[in-house]
Parts: sequence; structure tokens; C-alpha cells
Amino acid sequence: MQLHKLGEFGLIERIRKKFKKARSSKRILVGIGDDTAIISPHIDKLVLLTIDTMVEGLHFDLSYMTFADIGWKLMASNLSDIAAMGGIPVCALISLAVPSSYEVKWIDELYKGIEKISRRFNVSLVGGDTVSSSLLVVSLSLYGEIDRKKFSLRSGAKVGDLIFVTGNLGGSEAGRLVLKHNLPLGGEVLAEVKSKHLHPIPRIDKAKMLLKNVRIHSMIDISDGLASEINHIAEESKVGALIYEDKIPISKSTQKVAEKLGDKAINYALYGGEDYELLFTLSQGEQKKVKNLTNRIPIGEIIERKKGVLLIDRNGYKHRLKAKGYEHFKNTISAIKRTRTAMS
Amino acid sequence: MQLHKLGEFGLIERIRKKFKKARSSKRILVGIGDDTAIISPHIDKLVLLTIDTMVEGLHFDLSYMTFADIGWKLMASNLSDIAAMGGIPVCALISLAVPSSYEVKWIDELYKGIEKISRRFNVSLVGGDTVSSSLLVVSLSLYGEIDRKKFSLRSGAKVGDLIFVTGNLGGSEAGRLVLKHNLPLGGEVLAEVKSKHLHPIPRIDKAKMLLKNVRIHSMIDISDGLASEINHIAEESKVGALIYEDKIPISKSTQKVAEKLGDKAINYALYGGEDYELLFTLSQGEQKKVKNLTNRIPIGEIIERKKGVLLIDRNGYKHRLKAKGYEHFKNTISAIKRTRTAMS
Repeated sequence: MQLHKLGEFGLIERIRKKFKKARSSKRILVGIGDDTAIISPHIDKLVLLTIDTMVEGLHFDLSYMTFADIGWKLMASNLSDIAAMGGIPVCALISLAVPSSYEVKWIDELYKGIEKISRRFNVSLVGGDTVSSSLLVVSLSLYGEIDRKKFSLRSGAKVGDLIFVTGNLGGSEAGRLVLKHNLPLGGEVLAEVKSKHLHPIPRIDKAKMLLKNVRIHSMIDISDGLASEINHIAEESKVGALIYEDKIPISKSTQKVAEKLGDKAINYALYGGEDYELLFTLSQGEQKKVKNLTNRIPIGEIIERKKGVLLIDRNGYKHRLKAKGYEHFKNTISAIKRTRTAMS
Repeated sequence: MQLHKLGEFGLIERIRKKFKKARSSKRILVGIGDDTAIISPHIDKLVLLTIDTMVEGLHFDLSYMTFADIGWKLMASNLSDIAAMGGIPVCALISLAVPSSYEVKWIDELYKGIEKISRRFNVSLVGGDTVSSSLLVVSLSLYGEIDRKKFSLRSGAKVGDLIFVTGNLGGSEAGRLVLKHNLPLGGEVLAEVKSKHLHPIPRIDKAKMLLKNVRIHSMIDISDGLASEINHIAEESKVGALIYEDKIPISKSTQKVAEKLGDKAINYALYGGEDYELLFTLSQGEQKKVKNLTNRIPIGEIIERKKGVLLIDRNGYKHRLKAKGYEHFKNTISAIKRTRTAMS
């Protein structure tokens, strides 16, 4: 059945029923079905708001992604923004601009992907908008909460801070390339990078654990590649940064994909993006705690602003590290084409 | 200058600077420039969340609308949802999917329209997302607040309630037709219906005043036409409704446009939509207060569910009043094509 048979109100009713069954917080006083949703805010917390949009042909490729993958990923990218603040997600609004020739089952699948990750992170769908369009464009807006005193901004990095990431980088880009080119790779490698690209796990829990145990100075999620994100931290904190190439964690599977394609895996990590790991900085005194909690070593340090943002390669040479992930609207794109970036 | 010259980060910086100057509430702890916005919620209030999307070619026609008009209208439609709950808007997120061939000045204009109405209603822009797309699709998500005890849902209408609207209906559709067909009409008529279509004023203040002074049982904003909205109230409240055709307020200008086009103005009111007036119901005992406050008379009453939703025409004949405004995805559209509708 195509969407035009079901109609807008039929679709809304379908979504509403689907999400009524899903777990819903007592604090959601009104969900789908009124002019707005009503939420009872936690009086001890601050509110977080974010929005992310995915556009057909740009952010996703239906030749190797299912609609459920798109739904998962859109929610994951928003959740990752909440994670970067050290927050907990509460509820979401979804705006769906979709061609009327689309099959209803595709939309069902899209919402199934959204529902699956929503259930995992206790997010309720509380409203949205559905309109027809010649192109699939999906926006998701997320409402989350953080402790009034414990949160992490991009702007708090201090000279002397150590720089950490929560996990391996470059895996999502490796996965994208494997999927796109249908590379013949062994089961384990394929499963790892594919999952990293299609079903990234936002680091909500890790961020919470870190904020609880160590004094984080600054934090950002890695949606556009390490190069871009460390530059954001540097700019907002008015500092410089030094990243050691040989300390950037990259999985063996990602290395294998890069070898197969004649690429350098480091480029996936620096410019590939969509890894949805977190990058954070803290004073040297906290290093041991981070090591105990996450088994991670620093990948670099915060330096004076005038020194800029630098990469030290394996041979000890310094390079200026430019924020050259995928930038929307620009025709000149970096070596690795990237597909997503956030305004906030 | 086209967008691809400025690039995504250039555009974000431009928007950020523009809105930094704009009035911002002390409760916005973090706005544009971090992973999410941070807002300090009012501890005595409940949170309202809504989202609306406008798609090029469907929700707006650039042959007679400026980009500033689009910006105004998108914000107005969201504000109207907040008004329908009896709420006050606080801040907004904007997601912009836009072709890279667009002129930067068009986007400046779009944000100018958003800024103008935002200033009027004290809304701060706190974040968003900008991505490239083959088609302009703009989503706006709004965060508002209401009193924990005084708010108005679609679901509270009771049998015996009187039905009111806050202002004239059909004007937006009349304006759309005048603009679309470039009708040769007198200055005053043109100005009135044009303004009603391009720069609707969401009824935030009226809703607040009403909630303060009378006991509203149910309320909804008229974005899809009276027929559609009264059916939403009936469905959510599990009641029926009776609307008297001759009591529906329609301005002389709207009548004139309808005459010129050989249409019935009542159809604009019933099915035209985008008037962004409010429809509300309350018990008969409150009627006098409404008359004193707004000088409005009831346009109908709430009846038992089994009787359905009916229109009594000028000759006293009953008609079933179907929710046949514009419905997305459907090929069969009502007499008057409509352009916007909300999921929540």
C-alpha cells in the first residue's frame, strides 16, 4: 500500500498506536494527538534541546541502508548530542517530509528503527509533523535533561588538559565504504564496521559515568570526524590542541578495510565522522581515574591558542589539523566525503 | 553570493551572530554553538513541545511569497500550536535543508522573517541544523511553557458546551487565492487578506487572556480549516458538534474575494485553513464572560457523539461536516486545496 492510500491522518493514527504501546514516562502528560506535547520537567534539572535532519541521497543511501537503519541512525545522532552534554534523553518530536508514492511499510520500518533505539534509551515519541514532499527529509528534535551542576560544554577546555576519546574512531566510515562498494570481507570485520556505520550506540551511559566520577572540562560528540570536533573545542574554548596520530584508537577491522581500499585508516578517524564517540578534556590530575574507568590513554593535549590545532604524525612531524570533514554547501570536500554535521 | 561559497560553517556563524544580537532570555544558559541548547525550566510550569515543517512547492509558493514571509509563517504556525494550549513560547530550534545554489541573501531574508516574529513573541533561537538538499525543507521546533493547572486540550469538550472562535475565518485562503491569481482588488481588501495569509498573528495573547478569565473546556488552533479542527475536538473529546453556518465570522474582504472568484466564502472558512485563530468550547454559564471579553457569539454547540459533527446551513438544513481540508499524501483533495497540517 502506498502512502497516498492511507492518507496523512491514517498515517498519524498508525504512528500514534505504535507509540502508545511503547513505554512512556509518567512525566509525559500529553503525547501525540494534541496541538503540542506536555512534559512535566524535572525541577532539579536543566533542559537540553537539539535537532538533526537527514536528507535522502545525502545522509543515507537506500541501496545499502534499510528504513529501519535510517530511523536508528537519526535518533542515534540526536542522542549523541545529548550524551555530549552529559545528559539523559526524555522525549522526541519527528517531522517527516515524505513522497506520497512511498510504501506504508517503508514508513513502518523507519518508525520501527526509531522505536528500537528509543526503547533502549527510554525515549518517548511525543509528537511530530507529517507532510508530503518530493524527497524524504526527516528531522528529529530531542528533549533531554542534565543535572543543574554537572554538565559538559565545548567551551571549558584549559591549556594543559589531556584529550581523550571514548572509543575507536573511523569505523563508521570504514563501514560506509564496505557497504557502498560491497567489499568482499570476512564475517567479523564486516559485522563490526557495518554495525558501527548502521547502528552506532550513542555514549549516553559512558558520559554519565564519566561526569559522575571525573571533572570533565569540555566534551563534544564525534559526528563530523576528530579533526572537525577538536577544532570546535579549540574555537569555543579559545585554545589550541595537539593530537598524536599514533594514539588515536582505530580497530583492526577498520585498518583492514583501509588496507583493502589503499586508504590510510587515520583519515577515516580524522575526517570520516559518524562514529558518535565522545571527545573530552580534563586536567592531568584526572588521568589515572580515566584510565581506571575506561582503560583509555590520552590522544593529545590542549595547548595555547596561538599554537593552533596540530597533528603530530608517527614520524614526529607537526601538521596543521584542519576541520575538513564534510561541509554542507561547499563544493570542495576533503579526501573523504562525509555525510552529516550539526549546527549545534 | 551562493551558499556553496559561504559553506555550512560560514552560514552557521552568520546565523549565530544575527541571533546573538536578538533579545535572549536569562534562562537560555547555552544557545547556538554547542552540542545542544541548555534551558533552565520554570519550576512552576509545564513544558510544551511542538514541531512544524514547510516544504518548497507545497507549503509556499515563491512566486508571491518572500523568504521573510516563509520564515514568519513557519514560526507563526508553531506559535499557534503553543497558543492553542494556552502557553507562552520560550525558544526555538530550526532545521534548514537547502540547495547549495541558493543565494545567501535569501537565507538571510528567511531568518529575518523568523527574527521579526520571534522578537514580537520573545522567542530565542537556540539551535538547529543546516544541511544541503535538492529542495528547501524547513522544520521549526518550539519549546514553550504553561501553568501547571491552567491549560487547554483538545479532549475536554463536554456535551452542552458552546463553541467559539477568536476571529474571522477564511481570510488566509482568500489571501492565498488573491496572491496566486494576482487578482485586481482594492487596496484595503488586498491588504487585509494578504496580511492574513502572509503574516498571520498567532493568538498567544488571546489564549492567555481567555484562560485567565474563563473556564475553557477544550481548545485547538485553526490551521487546517474549521471543518477539520472541530472534527479533531469531537474525536479527542468523544462528542459530536453542531456548527451554524450563519454564525461563522467571515470578513467583508474575504466575502469580496469569494464573490470575485465565484466561490462561497464559507468554504474558505471551513476548508481553507491557515487562519491560526483558536476554536474553543466552554459551558453555557461562561458565555457572557466571553461576550464581554471578546465580543464573540457562539458559532455552535457540542452535542452527543452519536449525532456526529454537523453543519446547519442558512436554510436550516443539516449536513455532515467532514474533515476535508488538505490531507497530505491523499490524491483526493477537497474543493479547496490546502497547504499545511500538523500531526500534533
